[in-house]
Amino acid sequence: MGEQKPGLEVCLSPALLHLYDVKNSIVVIIDVLRATSTICTVLYNGASRVIPVATVPECVSIGAQLGENAITAGERDGKIAEGLLHGNSPFEYPREFIQDKTLVLTTTNGTKLLHMAKDAIAIITGSFPNISAVCDYLVAQGKPVILGCAAWKDRVNMEDTLFAGAVVNRIKDHFTVDCDSAVAAEALYITSKDNIHEVMKQASHYKRLAKFGLEKDIRYCLTPDGANVLPIYRNGELVAAE
Amino acid sequence: MGEQKPGLEVCLSPALLHLYDVKNSIVVIIDVLRATSTICTVLYNGASRVIPVATVPECVSIGAQLGENAITAGERDGKIAEGLLHGNSPFEYPREFIQDKTLVLTTTNGTKLLHMAKDAIAIITGSFPNISAVCDYLVAQGKPVILGCAAWKDRVNMEDTLFAGAVVNRIKDHFTVDCDSAVAAEALYITSKDNIHEVMKQASHYKRLAKFGLEKDIRYCLTPDGANVLPIYRNGELVAAE
Repeated sequence: MGEQKPGLEVCLSPALLHLYDVKNSIVVIIDVLRATSTICTVLYNGASRVIPVATVPECVSIGAQLGENAITAGERDGKIAEGLLHGNSPFEYPREFIQDKTLVLTTTNGTKLLHMAKDAIAIITGSFPNISAVCDYLVAQGKPVILGCAAWKDRVNMEDTLFAGAVVNRIKDHFTVDCDSAVAAEALYITSKDNIHEVMKQASHYKRLAKFGLEKDIRYCLTPDGANVLPIYRNGELVAAE
Repeated sequence: MGEQKPGLEVCLSPALLHLYDVKNSIVVIIDVLRATSTICTVLYNGASRVIPVATVPECVSIGAQLGENAITAGERDGKIAEGLLHGNSPFEYPREFIQDKTLVLTTTNGTKLLHMAKDAIAIITGSFPNISAVCDYLVAQGKPVILGCAAWKDRVNMEDTLFAGAVVNRIKDHFTVDCDSAVAAEALYITSKDNIHEVMKQASHYKRLAKFGLEKDIRYCLTPDGANVLPIYRNGELVAAE
């Protein structure tokens, strides 16, 4: 008889997080379109850190305190929020622009979930561009894991569920999966992975973003390992793990 | 240009129901293992009505008021609850036993959701044994639909999600599906339907019930149209639609 493997669970919406044992788990914050895809991208491109904040005024205020080394970013309803300088697209942050800078980023769904998970053993962010870094870390830690989907205003969404399913599919042999959301997310991923862009065209968020001409963003956010670093949350900021 | 079709949405847990417009929708209560499977079965077998109640004491008290024509039923932790006479298995209710009687049934997850949905246009119950009756009714009504999964203590479960997906798969051409949970549930159903019993063996509820030797119940509850009537909730009771 081997040791009991740690649990691997999927939480499909922040409104369900209270049902999970956050305190004794590593929580992966998943906000594929586009917060967590952009976070790993800016860290991959050399940003010193990302400070996630809940509101636009908080973003403005922290940006002002930090001075010229800080970039304030965030969108509301698909546009750069008033008072901020940049948006949520990973393509806004090439190395020559973001290296050694601090990104102060306000997003609604992802930031909310991150703050809800603050008592976890550890918090990291995940999305397709850094899926391998996420999976390697989770397997190496060997602790219980909650894959936390940021969802959309608490409604379950396709892209975060697909990513959670992709992670389950990759690392399940190292864990005990006794969670129907995890089994369902994996099944969804398996059946979608060979035509993930077509599947995503049925998703509500795809329709919202495509309206703004962001197909290129969507494609990048659904492609594995374009920015394969591991963002870890410590003392209010996300930094790339060594 | 045709008229806009009514919406078809899936709510994966009672903890998410507040995100949906219950008041302007028909709500289908889904508690496949086993409450809503048993409800359609007893009505199919001639019971005059089912009174769903939240607690065991309420079940005992209503049963006592109704006298010998009432059967009190309900389980807690897989056993007939103390003070009640029958359990949740559809096989406990053949026609020769249940015809013209009232079943007073207490179940935790399904009853809770039913009471939460009380302001809906109409409330019906659905499960594989009455899937055709459910689909025919929803298409005929032509109104917005919420497929409400009873889940397990608010945790998303496999069997209710699969049934919701099966309904989406059957009737989506008559509706507008702008709900990622519906798209995901349908994908899960499509990928599972040819080996639904195998898929269910990964489900947490399956493991709980199989411990009690209830594989026969599970098989019945996952098989279409064994008890094809439509239970409608009116004035605190479920009756078979004419």
